[in-house]
Amino acid sequence: MEGEVKEEIDLPPGFRFHPSDEELITYYLMNKISDSNNFIARAIGDVDLNKSEPWDLPGKAKMGEEEWYFFSQRDRKYPTGVRTNRATNSGYWKTTGKDKEIFSNLELVGMKKTLVFYKGRAPRGEKTNWVMHEYRLHSKSSYTTHKVF
Amino acid sequence: MEGEVKEEIDLPPGFRFHPSDEELITYYLMNKISDSNNFIARAIGDVDLNKSEPWDLPGKAKMGEEEWYFFSQRDRKYPTGVRTNRATNSGYWKTTGKDKEIFSNLELVGMKKTLVFYKGRAPRGEKTNWVMHEYRLHSKSSYTTHKVF
Repeated sequence: MEGEVKEEIDLPPGFRFHPSDEELITYYLMNKISDSNNFIARAIGDVDLNKSEPWDLPGKAKMGEEEWYFFSQRDRKYPTGVRTNRATNSGYWKTTGKDKEIFSNLELVGMKKTLVFYKGRAPRGEKTNWVMHEYRLHSKSSYTTHKVF
Repeated sequence: MEGEVKEEIDLPPGFRFHPSDEELITYYLMNKISDSNNFIARAIGDVDLNKSEPWDLPGKAKMGEEEWYFFSQRDRKYPTGVRTNRATNSGYWKTTGKDKEIFSNLELVGMKKTLVFYKGRAPRGEKTNWVMHEYRLHSKSSYTTHKVF
């Protein structure tokens, strides 16, 4: 990251990036997937979630105070499988609750999964207060958008 | 309002005006009070709350989807008194709960009052779902900032 200049938007006081679930999917994720080389989101950077501990994520974000947004690519647990590898060096993200359907004009456009970070290794991990929402398109793709808080 | 052009900020999707209580007081209200002729807030317009019904306020706002922000000047109930006139043509705003102290770096900078709109005339007004937060400086001034939702 050294030498890299953080891109900042000059926003008046009180303006924040508070996207809706629908905007995250229909604008940000769809654009990222359709043109991942050229689409630059001013508030959402790329991150490798397997190489980042949750407490390092705020520092890697483009903006955010209590919530931070990222794009990431899914790492398959096994090359031939469909399960996602959600481990980091110090722990793992574990799904909690049921996935939520996200609609846009009554059309199902994506899903939102809630995950909690545990330190250590399953099944003996120690639950933390780090929470992440993972947004995926209602279609097959390796890209997902993440909101960490 | 005819002929007036609404000033719009070109914000990327997901960016919204979601100011903190502290920002409303220490940036917006303080600037408005110190330079009311020249200070233009891109998200907060001026309004006469005695001449506006709550359901007309969203249309008078510069921006907002579920919350709208305004500056207003206090109308004294009686020329020599300190009580504020909170009546409109069709009803009145009534205080609910206790005023909340707003701090900035441990310093008391202002107060936040919560009001609910009642149709009709006190004490027989009919409660509505319109809510307003009124922010005032911790000092004497006729200007207040309002958040309506």
